[in-house]
Amino acid sequence: MPTNSYPLLTSVNDPADLRRLPRADLKALAAELRAFVIDSVAQTGGHLSSNLGTVELTVALHRVFNTPHDRLVWDVGHQTYPHKILTGRRDRMGSLRQLGGLSGFPQRVESEYDTFGTAHSSTSISAALGMALAAKRKGEERHAVAIIGDGAMTAGMAFEALNNAGVADCNLLVILNDNDMSISPPVGALNRYLAQLMSGQFYAKAKNVGKNVLKNAPPLLELAKRLEQQAKGMVVPATLFEKFGFNYIGPIDGHDLDSLIPTLENIKGLPGPQFLHVVTKKGQGYKLAEQDPIAYHGPGKFDPRVGLTPPATPPKQTFTQVFGQWLCDMAAHDSRLVGITPAMREGSGMVEFHRRFPDRYYDVGIAEQHAVTFAAGMACEGAKPVVAIYSTFLQRGYDQLIHDVALQNLPVVFALDRAGLVGADGATHAGAYDIPFIRCIPNMALACPADERECRQLLSTAFAQNQPVAVRYPRGAGVGTAPLASLEGLPFGKGEVRRTRQASAEADAAPGSAPRIAILAFGTLLYPALQAAEAIDATVVNMRWAKPLDVELLLEVAASHDALVTLEEGAIMGGAGSAVLEALSQAGVLRPVLQLGLPDVFIEHGDPAKLLALQGLDAAGIERAVHQRFLAPVPL
Amino acid sequence: MPTNSYPLLTSVNDPADLRRLPRADLKALAAELRAFVIDSVAQTGGHLSSNLGTVELTVALHRVFNTPHDRLVWDVGHQTYPHKILTGRRDRMGSLRQLGGLSGFPQRVESEYDTFGTAHSSTSISAALGMALAAKRKGEERHAVAIIGDGAMTAGMAFEALNNAGVADCNLLVILNDNDMSISPPVGALNRYLAQLMSGQFYAKAKNVGKNVLKNAPPLLELAKRLEQQAKGMVVPATLFEKFGFNYIGPIDGHDLDSLIPTLENIKGLPGPQFLHVVTKKGQGYKLAEQDPIAYHGPGKFDPRVGLTPPATPPKQTFTQVFGQWLCDMAAHDSRLVGITPAMREGSGMVEFHRRFPDRYYDVGIAEQHAVTFAAGMACEGAKPVVAIYSTFLQRGYDQLIHDVALQNLPVVFALDRAGLVGADGATHAGAYDIPFIRCIPNMALACPADERECRQLLSTAFAQNQPVAVRYPRGAGVGTAPLASLEGLPFGKGEVRRTRQASAEADAAPGSAPRIAILAFGTLLYPALQAAEAIDATVVNMRWAKPLDVELLLEVAASHDALVTLEEGAIMGGAGSAVLEALSQAGVLRPVLQLGLPDVFIEHGDPAKLLALQGLDAAGIERAVHQRFLAPVPL
Repeated sequence: MPTNSYPLLTSVNDPADLRRLPRADLKALAAELRAFVIDSVAQTGGHLSSNLGTVELTVALHRVFNTPHDRLVWDVGHQTYPHKILTGRRDRMGSLRQLGGLSGFPQRVESEYDTFGTAHSSTSISAALGMALAAKRKGEERHAVAIIGDGAMTAGMAFEALNNAGVADCNLLVILNDNDMSISPPVGALNRYLAQLMSGQFYAKAKNVGKNVLKNAPPLLELAKRLEQQAKGMVVPATLFEKFGFNYIGPIDGHDLDSLIPTLENIKGLPGPQFLHVVTKKGQGYKLAEQDPIAYHGPGKFDPRVGLTPPATPPKQTFTQVFGQWLCDMAAHDSRLVGITPAMREGSGMVEFHRRFPDRYYDVGIAEQHAVTFAAGMACEGAKPVVAIYSTFLQRGYDQLIHDVALQNLPVVFALDRAGLVGADGATHAGAYDIPFIRCIPNMALACPADERECRQLLSTAFAQNQPVAVRYPRGAGVGTAPLASLEGLPFGKGEVRRTRQASAEADAAPGSAPRIAILAFGTLLYPALQAAEAIDATVVNMRWAKPLDVELLLEVAASHDALVTLEEGAIMGGAGSAVLEALSQAGVLRPVLQLGLPDVFIEHGDPAKLLALQGLDAAGIERAVHQRFLAPVPL
Repeated sequence: MPTNSYPLLTSVNDPADLRRLPRADLKALAAELRAFVIDSVAQTGGHLSSNLGTVELTVALHRVFNTPHDRLVWDVGHQTYPHKILTGRRDRMGSLRQLGGLSGFPQRVESEYDTFGTAHSSTSISAALGMALAAKRKGEERHAVAIIGDGAMTAGMAFEALNNAGVADCNLLVILNDNDMSISPPVGALNRYLAQLMSGQFYAKAKNVGKNVLKNAPPLLELAKRLEQQAKGMVVPATLFEKFGFNYIGPIDGHDLDSLIPTLENIKGLPGPQFLHVVTKKGQGYKLAEQDPIAYHGPGKFDPRVGLTPPATPPKQTFTQVFGQWLCDMAAHDSRLVGITPAMREGSGMVEFHRRFPDRYYDVGIAEQHAVTFAAGMACEGAKPVVAIYSTFLQRGYDQLIHDVALQNLPVVFALDRAGLVGADGATHAGAYDIPFIRCIPNMALACPADERECRQLLSTAFAQNQPVAVRYPRGAGVGTAPLASLEGLPFGKGEVRRTRQASAEADAAPGSAPRIAILAFGTLLYPALQAAEAIDATVVNMRWAKPLDVELLLEVAASHDALVTLEEGAIMGGAGSAVLEALSQAGVLRPVLQLGLPDVFIEHGDPAKLLALQGLDAAGIERAVHQRFLAPVPL
């Protein structure tokens, strides 16, 4: 990008620079910022629509508030590219979401302007309230601002925070960034209510407030006062947010700096919890994204002049797509099936299911707790619910999984997408913990398909059980085994030997022979294990189930081998490898075991294959680890 | 109880009997039911105040709805004693909350009238919505009714469910049982709002509606119609619940059958999601409980004529009290400390802290998700939050623990009360999973004090760390070691040997000598381990930390012993014993290990000591298990 395309933007190296600019220049700055975002995301991929929606809001917030002294907490945080660009990270935007580069979300370690790390939705009000009350206790004069989308507002924890904040006496501002969107189209009563707030005269009037006021050009303070009176008069009486104890202001046009800046200036002077309702448009200013904000929610690289184009070679089928196809096929086969998603229709591969079975599709909003218990309620009445949920988001419904599903042993299937490392989204989205956190729950079963074909088969197996079963599969594509059309499952709780050592019994009996090694793979790392096994002549077992463990098979393999290696794309601590240790221990079998999996650290964003290799979870890494431990032990 | 004290009640063996009674008899039935509840709880202990509050509502619901065909879902469920008594379980009330007896909560396995197992709060709307939509899909005409308290209504998942249900087209009735109470006094904006709804003329009028209408005695249908019109006219326009898409009716007097029955009859005929606001009084009809509903929330046995009396001998100090005292002492010592509770001031031992440090005490309502992220926000600003939360309720804040606290490595202390088996509350409240679900999270540490003194010391250690640390301790009292006044901690991540085997090296070297055994205890089971060790001459190690594990000590002990036993009051799968297996495996040390702890089943309610003994976790059980496995192995 030639520097002269962004003359104003390049003069802003931090928000203090922005605050020194003439007020009249800000519109042009916003235009440059928008163009920069488009160019930048076109080169790196990342979130687009949401960032185009927050350009003016970001400019206005850093203009009015004294950041970083005042705290901005961006909910979800995928809309913070303009914020990153304005807070000293413009030059590093080319490294976005890449190994060692900028995160796609706010991170406290990345910048003092990132006051709270986000990525999962609906945490911002809780965090900002904590900050505001802590500041108050210390006698510090500072503002805490939570910027939260209308989708994120449907999650229970946002309401928990509103309920708590509405009676708190502190400098808290909640900005509802209302773009009528979560990733999927919005659902639920709150959304309908917000639409009502925006309809009718008052919003039409609100859009012109700033301009009319500015035309008369009174001194700024008086302007702010008048604006408040006008704004307050215009809103419908007793909005939902006022019932929660907030002073509600809005809705105002979130792309109009002449509305945003005076309104924020004004709010800054008001005591107690404030609620500003801002209306923005996802994709604003980039026609293609305005027209299809879902497609441009998180695009890969593209040419901004052309927009998204279909890839030259069709991409490999993803696990998500395998699940989506299975869901439709099983639904056609069994009328008891219902599909439930917490606002992830696209990400979970349920678009086709929704189209074909609209009355059996339940998008409950960003509401993981409710999604799980709602499924339990349906199961009580004989339905067979399939909850499609990312591994990382099931953490939100963990208590419900234990208390409502497992304890009552209800037949709910959990399709856990994004299990393991997720790549560009980083540590916040890693599906690293589901094996330990599910395995310890009685009545639960957990399958780990090794490839696409098995994924479909194990979903069918899960669906056939009269108990809760989770099936975990990673982001993206696997090795590419074509799923069978059949809806037949694989045996419940049973693994299979995929490769048997080649060495003869005589060779093994020779003095100084290498130990007989078996790799027990849980999930898609089976394939690098098979590769590694060629070099080290190991037996490879596809364990398929983290729970129940195929103890019979395990003990057979343990009896005929000298050392075992467990392998999983998940936390080692308490994971499937630990299930192997437990079973061996219970059976009184002593065998050296090497546990390979994710170490006890948070793993940042980056290319998934590179990340796995860095953790030693590719074929070369597995070979290396086995060699080091069992074949050429290095002295401690 | 002589039968003739309850002539009407004993004639009701199921709700069909109740529906056959003359309408005029119901008031007398309710009076008998109330007396029975008081007598029954006085004999068994259990929940009292809440059950006295639901007597008339229970009678009215079973009168109006065709149970069990229509589904009643009782939120939390501790208020279901009247429901249990009317649904065929009157004679078994003497076994309440005892081993093999009735559960203190609804359970699907106990009765077809218990349509959904509850105990954790705020699940009822989700479950009832699932039931209503599943029934609709099957073309079944049935009603689903969720009965939820005003405290439970503050939890996020209740709002997630309201948001989803408000746009659903099904026969769902939500009854808000508004008694102005969670267990602790109510907090938050919703509570203030409900108080507004109840204040003013409209509620005063509503209380008399039923009576006035009945005086004129019109036909029932007309009565119902008029009642609806009147009731609708009386409420404030556009309540919060109407904004969520519900048809709001109320508030009405929940102790007046003449209001309840016609209103419910009427609602039964209305289409779409209905919301009935019922006002009740905790402890209603028992003066002592009305005056002090907190004390009578969950009393032990008592004489109903006298009420609660102080015990003859003062009870042993509980771990909860040790925590409460430590919290006050540390707060006095360090002004950064703030205390956070999700509506469990009494249960978590924070009454005194609240009294002494009101501006550092945050009761956020029944809102575990918010509580954890709120703590994270405060920690970002240099506060040192202590979140007091039951192990089982931290399940509700699990994602926030990972995503907001651990990933940002914020110094938040989690005081995990009720870790392990909880006794009378049963499987729903068991703190059985925290070791596996915490241990797998990077940056987390987890301490398991063995007694009261250590509990205080390890809380101090936790508070001194610059990372998140949880300290788990069980319900009730331990062995009774008096805590020291000091706020000094114990070394982080270090255990200690508490007993060393007595056998001499010569004896060990003798042919046929018994294997040298070491028991590694995590938490309070250290003491039965010490007892058992006398009989089997074992070394006993007080491990103190489930994470980080004291690997150095572990390897020393492993080197000098032939077999190890791990012991914890928590799930074996993925628990502290598995951490031992992982560490041994990583170090390449092969030793037989026996893992003792909670098996992979849900364990029902009963006396805690009995339950532990049944699981073999008392001294005799430990001795028996070690003997069987290592000293006199039985052939497989």
